[in-house]
Amino acid sequence: MKYTSALIQEAVESLSALPGIGRKTALRLALFLAKQDPARSLRLAESIQRMVEGLRECSICFAYSDSDVCEICSNPGRDRSTICLVETVRDLMAIEETQQYKGLYHVLGGLISPIEGIGPDQLNIAGLVKRVATNPPQELIIALRPCIEGDTTIYYISRQEGMEGIRLSMIARGISFGSELEYADEFTLSRSLAGRIPYHPKDNS
Amino acid sequence: MKYTSALIQEAVESLSALPGIGRKTALRLALFLAKQDPARSLRLAESIQRMVEGLRECSICFAYSDSDVCEICSNPGRDRSTICLVETVRDLMAIEETQQYKGLYHVLGGLISPIEGIGPDQLNIAGLVKRVATNPPQELIIALRPCIEGDTTIYYISRQEGMEGIRLSMIARGISFGSELEYADEFTLSRSLAGRIPYHPKDNS
Repeated sequence: MKYTSALIQEAVESLSALPGIGRKTALRLALFLAKQDPARSLRLAESIQRMVEGLRECSICFAYSDSDVCEICSNPGRDRSTICLVETVRDLMAIEETQQYKGLYHVLGGLISPIEGIGPDQLNIAGLVKRVATNPPQELIIALRPCIEGDTTIYYISRQEGMEGIRLSMIARGISFGSELEYADEFTLSRSLAGRIPYHPKDNS
Repeated sequence: MKYTSALIQEAVESLSALPGIGRKTALRLALFLAKQDPARSLRLAESIQRMVEGLRECSICFAYSDSDVCEICSNPGRDRSTICLVETVRDLMAIEETQQYKGLYHVLGGLISPIEGIGPDQLNIAGLVKRVATNPPQELIIALRPCIEGDTTIYYISRQEGMEGIRLSMIARGISFGSELEYADEFTLSRSLAGRIPYHPKDNS
């Protein structure tokens, strides 16, 4: 692609380094940023800069935070007796979105994966073990995605010293709402059969 | 969506103001920017800032430019006897991409559209008329997209004082390469029939 301006070219190159943004989309975005009210475009640049420079990790749960302790860990309204273990901050946000969970979190930052060269030391597992030892929760809910790496990670964590007395639970696995049984993989389908739950018809009287 | 950090929230809001970027994509981009090498994320912010603050319009052709006269207008290698009229800088770049055109450009900045309240005064038409009067080209190629607004704009320009002596041409309209005749609209198909060109089989002897 030929550009009439090196400034546009630079912006396109930076934008197209973002995931899922190709060169054509990057050009469209750059020209949009060039055309709209400069104050708005500058606000985007500044918000990225501020985020990159100001963002920290919560020292308790390892979620992204603006200060040493994140808004969830410092919120006195949250149930401190439950910790939910998630892989990423995005998973945390997805659970928050449901508005069903009022406890605390712990962000692992990944899953144990020998193939990708990710060992326990690269994850926030030591922090979890220490946290649980210092202040044992009544329940540790494991909300990792169902996969070999997730299962390996769960197993590894459950075998750590100090985890014996902790009540562990796992989010339910099965067929997603709205999906077709015929398209479910055998593993999921057989697990959802094995993990069936009693059905009690609602009393409509 | 709940965010664990106001800095992330701000970045997501700025990113989701971009065309075609929803909140989920904006969050994905913000977390990517937060996670990757800070130098790269800052480079993006800086390139947007530099572009917004430094970008100008070429005083001759109205394309985006880093200086008073753009790289195409100031390039001595370009054919100065032809001007190609385009709606946007993106159209200019698309034509440049073909590597088939070596002349100059003129960027209108839009099309006359009474419905959208865009009149000739909001477009770079006066600049074109003045440019053509000062330095008449041998040919003015009109490369506006085929639509009512495009045709209105072409007609308006052709009736301006000083345009009488200028040889005007229009890019060919017809069936796109690779598209199916049965799916072409009637207008395009009838125009492509009326505008048929003689076929000369290649001499393979």
